[in-house]
Amino acid sequence: MIKDNNLYCIIMAGGVGARFWPKSRQSMPKQFLDIFGTGKSFLRMTFERFTPKVNSENFLVVTNRKYKDLVLEQLPEISPAQVLCEPIGKNTAPCICYAAYYLQKINPKAKMIVTPSDHLVLKEDKFHEILDNALSFIDKENILMTIGITPSRPETGYGYIQTSDSDTISKVKCFTEKPNLELAEAFIQSGEFFWNSGIFIWKVRDIINAIEKFLPEHHALFAKITDAYGTEREEEAIKEVFAECRPISIDYGVMEKAENVYVHIGEFGWSDVGTWGSLYQHSRKDKCANAIPEHGCYLYDTKSSIISIPNGKIAVINGLKDYIVVDTDDALLICPRSEEQNIKKYIDEVKFNDGDKHI
Amino acid sequence: MIKDNNLYCIIMAGGVGARFWPKSRQSMPKQFLDIFGTGKSFLRMTFERFTPKVNSENFLVVTNRKYKDLVLEQLPEISPAQVLCEPIGKNTAPCICYAAYYLQKINPKAKMIVTPSDHLVLKEDKFHEILDNALSFIDKENILMTIGITPSRPETGYGYIQTSDSDTISKVKCFTEKPNLELAEAFIQSGEFFWNSGIFIWKVRDIINAIEKFLPEHHALFAKITDAYGTEREEEAIKEVFAECRPISIDYGVMEKAENVYVHIGEFGWSDVGTWGSLYQHSRKDKCANAIPEHGCYLYDTKSSIISIPNGKIAVINGLKDYIVVDTDDALLICPRSEEQNIKKYIDEVKFNDGDKHI
Repeated sequence: MIKDNNLYCIIMAGGVGARFWPKSRQSMPKQFLDIFGTGKSFLRMTFERFTPKVNSENFLVVTNRKYKDLVLEQLPEISPAQVLCEPIGKNTAPCICYAAYYLQKINPKAKMIVTPSDHLVLKEDKFHEILDNALSFIDKENILMTIGITPSRPETGYGYIQTSDSDTISKVKCFTEKPNLELAEAFIQSGEFFWNSGIFIWKVRDIINAIEKFLPEHHALFAKITDAYGTEREEEAIKEVFAECRPISIDYGVMEKAENVYVHIGEFGWSDVGTWGSLYQHSRKDKCANAIPEHGCYLYDTKSSIISIPNGKIAVINGLKDYIVVDTDDALLICPRSEEQNIKKYIDEVKFNDGDKHI
Repeated sequence: MIKDNNLYCIIMAGGVGARFWPKSRQSMPKQFLDIFGTGKSFLRMTFERFTPKVNSENFLVVTNRKYKDLVLEQLPEISPAQVLCEPIGKNTAPCICYAAYYLQKINPKAKMIVTPSDHLVLKEDKFHEILDNALSFIDKENILMTIGITPSRPETGYGYIQTSDSDTISKVKCFTEKPNLELAEAFIQSGEFFWNSGIFIWKVRDIINAIEKFLPEHHALFAKITDAYGTEREEEAIKEVFAECRPISIDYGVMEKAENVYVHIGEFGWSDVGTWGSLYQHSRKDKCANAIPEHGCYLYDTKSSIISIPNGKIAVINGLKDYIVVDTDDALLICPRSEEQNIKKYIDEVKFNDGDKHI
């Protein structure tokens, strides 16, 4: 299949989430981890999800400068110039601005797929179909496309997108923040609400038009340094732009305000794997419903637990039910699955006492 | 205080017990561990317990050859010649024979204190008083002295010594194996039974007389190589003797049979620290009754647990009650305290699957 030379894939890989601590670290966030033990990190899986559609040289990975080497190590197919380094994280709008204004300079006809780097897609064929549909649509229409997931449960951890009709591709009525359980249940009942996957498809021209309109300060900052993109001056220029620009998400800054936003709905085994619970859900389980590595676990009277140990280490575990056990070289976590929302709090206490060493 | 140049201390340090796995290993058995985090191993604490009474050059440590370097590292005060190396463990009788026949050659007037290397003594002053009494006694009488501990609970994990009267030093009526709980309770009620500490005090001449009488084969083997002790030929000669000699404990082989056995009873905060339970009992606890290292443990809703982690590592633990958590570089154990008798079984399964690597 001939790939479209104007099609680019922007992988957003700057996250520093701590929810998978101690497996994820400031120095090794979730997107770089092979958390399922498949031999591939989330970033690698994301890259491979798009390579059937996008040329290797048409990928851009936007990440923090400190992860540049990690990205190049995990994606040897791309060149250092394809890693756009943020000096500091300022949420998704500045990240997408960087990629969009960069692309506008090198190819004004560019079409962009923007994707998070740390999500899971189980049904890749279905995903590719949706991608093809969405790309055809933006070829014809000057719109901003997002992908919405048919919800399978009243999840309170996701944002939702409300559609204005029941077509596969329909105009977005509104974006909503994470709902409470009651509201989430009402969303599901209505049939009008879909999970916001954070995957966007648009022409570079259209997103820049929208940024100019809804985030004029950002437009001014990123447009002003057009000369610098792809040159030696880029790093210095970007440093100044990021120092000045306001942190804001693309959803809040653009998508919720623009009139020409469409959603392509679908179901392709998607998860943001944002919690140990969702990781557990997507993992292979033993006969006692434990999600464990293939080797090294000796379990007795242990059920419905998720266990992670370093390669080559063994764990002998007796009497845990519904637990998370994560062992790494310098930190051990043992926590009931029902308490995982507290992991952030634990980390803060560790930080307070021991500094950043183990974080 | 002038120390008696004829007084020797024999530390038996050949044990390979697995009950403290994964903290104890075949390559690093319990006696070499600083399990309380005091900065001193059991062996080191044992050595220091006797140095007020015994000259450094009058210590002999009997151990397996593979632990020789460990012994010398932990006891830099002694010379390599003071480490008597067993080629293979054959229980306590051959161990004591080796030390006794060796001593008989270098000092026929030797008095021996024989002690395990991995026990705990909390009240050292009281222990030293008992030692002084016992040594005065064997100066005057040609007897074999053992030390019996006034029992504080119906312990089923220890052997007991029955006395024939209620004096501090009295003739032993009999030695008993580990009793069941009912019997242990009856022992305590009677006031005639004392825990067998495995500490012995005798003149070398007296123990050799007893060995000659009750373990004639052992006598023949160890007496035959008298010329070799302290020479280059010792290692080779001992290798042959150990290959031939029958494994047997000194209690079963000599103490239970000899007529001239006395026990000095006392109470000096003694424990063989043979289980995680007894280690827990003797450890400093936090306000939730957890025995934990000074640094690195962040506990939430966790009670009455014993936790061990490598230096410099941190552990975040939520929701464990009455558990043992032992983390080492290559093995992690999580087990209810009530299940600790199964640790041996777990190790066997690990061994069966993974070989000796983690044992």
